[in-house]
Amino acid sequence: MLCELISVGDELLIGQVVNTNSSWMAAELNMIGIGVHRITAIADTKDHVKQALDDAFRQVDIVIMTGGLGPTKDDITKTALAEYFEVELVLHEPTLQHIEIFFHKRGRMLTALNRKQAEIPSNCEPLFNPNGTAPGMWFEKDGKILVSLPGVPFEMKALMTHYILPRLASMRDGDVIIHKTVLTQGVGESFLADIIAPWEDALPPHIRLAYLPQPGIVRLRLSATGNNRLLLQEQLQEQVDELLRIIPELVFGFDNDTLESVVGQMLRSGGVTLGTAESCTGGYLAHLITSIPGSSDYFKGSIIAYSNELKTDLLGVSSQLLETHGAVSKEVAQQMAVGARNLLGCDYALATSGIAGPAGGTPEKPVGTVWIALATPTGTTSQVFQLGDKRDRNIRRSALSALNMLRVALKT
Amino acid sequence: MLCELISVGDELLIGQVVNTNSSWMAAELNMIGIGVHRITAIADTKDHVKQALDDAFRQVDIVIMTGGLGPTKDDITKTALAEYFEVELVLHEPTLQHIEIFFHKRGRMLTALNRKQAEIPSNCEPLFNPNGTAPGMWFEKDGKILVSLPGVPFEMKALMTHYILPRLASMRDGDVIIHKTVLTQGVGESFLADIIAPWEDALPPHIRLAYLPQPGIVRLRLSATGNNRLLLQEQLQEQVDELLRIIPELVFGFDNDTLESVVGQMLRSGGVTLGTAESCTGGYLAHLITSIPGSSDYFKGSIIAYSNELKTDLLGVSSQLLETHGAVSKEVAQQMAVGARNLLGCDYALATSGIAGPAGGTPEKPVGTVWIALATPTGTTSQVFQLGDKRDRNIRRSALSALNMLRVALKT
Repeated sequence: MLCELISVGDELLIGQVVNTNSSWMAAELNMIGIGVHRITAIADTKDHVKQALDDAFRQVDIVIMTGGLGPTKDDITKTALAEYFEVELVLHEPTLQHIEIFFHKRGRMLTALNRKQAEIPSNCEPLFNPNGTAPGMWFEKDGKILVSLPGVPFEMKALMTHYILPRLASMRDGDVIIHKTVLTQGVGESFLADIIAPWEDALPPHIRLAYLPQPGIVRLRLSATGNNRLLLQEQLQEQVDELLRIIPELVFGFDNDTLESVVGQMLRSGGVTLGTAESCTGGYLAHLITSIPGSSDYFKGSIIAYSNELKTDLLGVSSQLLETHGAVSKEVAQQMAVGARNLLGCDYALATSGIAGPAGGTPEKPVGTVWIALATPTGTTSQVFQLGDKRDRNIRRSALSALNMLRVALKT
Repeated sequence: MLCELISVGDELLIGQVVNTNSSWMAAELNMIGIGVHRITAIADTKDHVKQALDDAFRQVDIVIMTGGLGPTKDDITKTALAEYFEVELVLHEPTLQHIEIFFHKRGRMLTALNRKQAEIPSNCEPLFNPNGTAPGMWFEKDGKILVSLPGVPFEMKALMTHYILPRLASMRDGDVIIHKTVLTQGVGESFLADIIAPWEDALPPHIRLAYLPQPGIVRLRLSATGNNRLLLQEQLQEQVDELLRIIPELVFGFDNDTLESVVGQMLRSGGVTLGTAESCTGGYLAHLITSIPGSSDYFKGSIIAYSNELKTDLLGVSSQLLETHGAVSKEVAQQMAVGARNLLGCDYALATSGIAGPAGGTPEKPVGTVWIALATPTGTTSQVFQLGDKRDRNIRRSALSALNMLRVALKT
C-alpha cells in the first residue's frame, strides 16, 4: 500500500515553518508497512488542493492531508474537499457540541467562525479531535482513501495514533517494511562503501541499503520488505551481525543512539569516571559528553588549555617538550591526557591537540592535523588524524574520534 | 517567477530526516521575490525523478532539486537527469582535479566511485562546490531552468548563496527587495514585540518586519521593497538607528554576526583576555568562544568543574559556601569566576552554575535556574536566569546570556 502526504499552508512555502509533521507521519506509516510515495507541501488555495489530490490519486490509493482546517479565511481545505467530491458542507451536531464545551471550559465566547468549524463535507466520516475544534475527516471513494487532519502537531499526532494508523494497519495486505540503522564513526562514506562492498553486493534483493553521511558519522540504513515481520527482523539482524564481524571498531550504535550516549552508558555501567583536556576542540568534547542528562554521574570535568602556559601550569606538560615537538604532537597530547587524569582525579582522560584552522597550518603540520590521546588506568595511547580545512567540522570530527577511541578502549 | 523545490531521498520518505533544506531555500527564494509553488520529497529512483520533473515543469519555470548526488549506488539523480534530457554523462576535468586535490589534502586515495562524481550530463553547466566532491548543475531548456544541488546542507547553502540566488535575482524584473537583520539577545519574542510595538506600528508600508526566534536569540528582519536601492538602504538604516535608541542593551549585532564573534572582536580590539569556569554549560560556552578562528589570541582556557571537588580544589570555591548555599547560587558562581580569573591568568572570567535539567530541580531552585557571574579587573557581578525545562536549550541560552553580560560590560 502506497500513500502520499500533502501539507497545506503558505507558511511552509515561505520557509517560516519546517515540515516536521510529514517526517513524523512518514516514520509512523513505514512502521506499519505503508510506504510513502511522495511528500508535498502546497499553498492554501482551493485550486492547489484539488490539483494536488488529482496528481496524488493518479499514483497512490491513500492520501493524508494536513492543515487548512482552522477558523480563519486562509483555511480552505474543507471547502476545497467539498468541491473536489462535489458535495455540500453540512452541520455535524456532535462536533458543534464538542466545540461549545471546548469554549465553555476555557471561558470563551463562541464566534460564528468557530461555529463553522462544525460543518463538514456530507460524504465524510468525522473523526473526533479531543485536542482541538477541527475534526479529522475520513473519505472513501472508488477504492481510494483520503484523510484530512488538522496541522497542529499534537492534534494531528493524537488522531493518527488513535484512529488512522490502527485503521490503515488493519486494511493492509501482505508486505511490511522494517528498518534498522547501523551507526559508524571513523571513515568516510566512500571508504566505508569500499570496505563493505562484498557484504553489500551479497544482500538479498528484498533488503536495501542506504548511506546517510553526517560530519564524522556515516549511518547505514537497512530496509527489509516482505510479509513476515518476525522473519524480516531475523534476516536484518543476521545482516547486522555479519556487518559487525567486518567493521567492529567502526560501529558504535544503532537507530537513535549517539556516540556520547553510548560512551556514557559504558562509563556508567563500568562505574568509571572521565575527564578531558582540550586544546583544539575548545570545550566541544566536554559539551558533547555533558549534553547527556545525568552525565555528572561519570564526568568529572575538563581543562580547556588553549594557551601553552595552561598546558604546562595546569596539566604539567613539559615546556621542553612543547619547545621541541610543538603543541600539536603525540608527546604533548599524551602528557595532557595524563595530566588531566591526575588533576581531575578520573579513571579515563581524553586529550585533544590540533590545528582546527582555517589558519595556523605548516607544511609539516597542515590544517586538520589532530592528535588525540587517551590515558587509562593501564597506560596511555594516542592517534593522529588528518582532517579537512573547515574549522567547525574539524572540531566536531575530532571530538567524535576521541569518543570513539574511548568506546573501543572501554569495550576491550 | 515561480519555483518548485524537489528533494530526492528515501530518508525523507521514511521520516528519518526532516526536510530542513526546503524551508531554508524557500525562505531565501522568497527574499529575492521568487515564490515557491510547491515543495516535494520523492524516492531516489530514476522514474520518480523524471516523473517529478514532468509534473513540476507543467506548473513552474524553475525547479531546484537537492540530493542523490553522492558517490554510492543509491545516488541516482545524475543518471536520471541525463536520461530526462536525453544526453550522455561526460567527464568534467576541472571537477576531477578538484576531487583529486580534495582527497590528496586529506591524505586519502581516490576510488572509482569518487572518480565517477566528476561525470556530469553533457548539457549542464557545472557549479563549483568548494565544500564537497559533487558539483552543482545548472540546466536550461525551452525557457525552463533546472538546478541540481547536493543534499548536504552546508554544501547546498554555499552553492545557493554564491551562485543560484544572485543569478536568479538578476533574472527577476522590476522591484528590488533589500534586507537588514537586527540581532537581539536577552528577551523572548513576545516581550520584545511589546517593547518595540510603537516603533513597529510606525514602519512605512514598504518596510516589513519579521520576527525570527531561535533559542536565546531573536532576529528582527527588515525587508524594504522599491525601485531605488540606495534610497531603500538609507531608509532601512534610519529604522535600525531608531531601534538602537530603544533597545541598545539587547542588540548585539547585524545580519550574519554571532554573539561569540562580536564579543571576540571587542576582546581583541581591547587587548584583553578571557577565560571561563563552567558547570551547567559543561564546555559549551568555551566551545562557542573557540568556534571563532583566531580566538586563541584572546581566549586563555576554561575549567569545566562538573564535580563539587573540582570547584573547591581548582577554583578555590569555599566548601562551606557550597554547603550553605549550594552549587547553584550567587556566592558560588562569583567565587568560580574569581577563581578562574586567578587560575587562568585572564582579564575577564565568566562562570556558570545552574540546573540544566531535565532532573535535579527543587521547589526553591527549579530546573532552569542558572547563575552567571563575571569577574573583571574592577570587580565581580552576577545575574540569575530562570530558563525552561529543556536541557539543550538551557545550556545554549545560559552560554548566550553569559556572552551578552560580557558584551554589555565591555561596551561601557
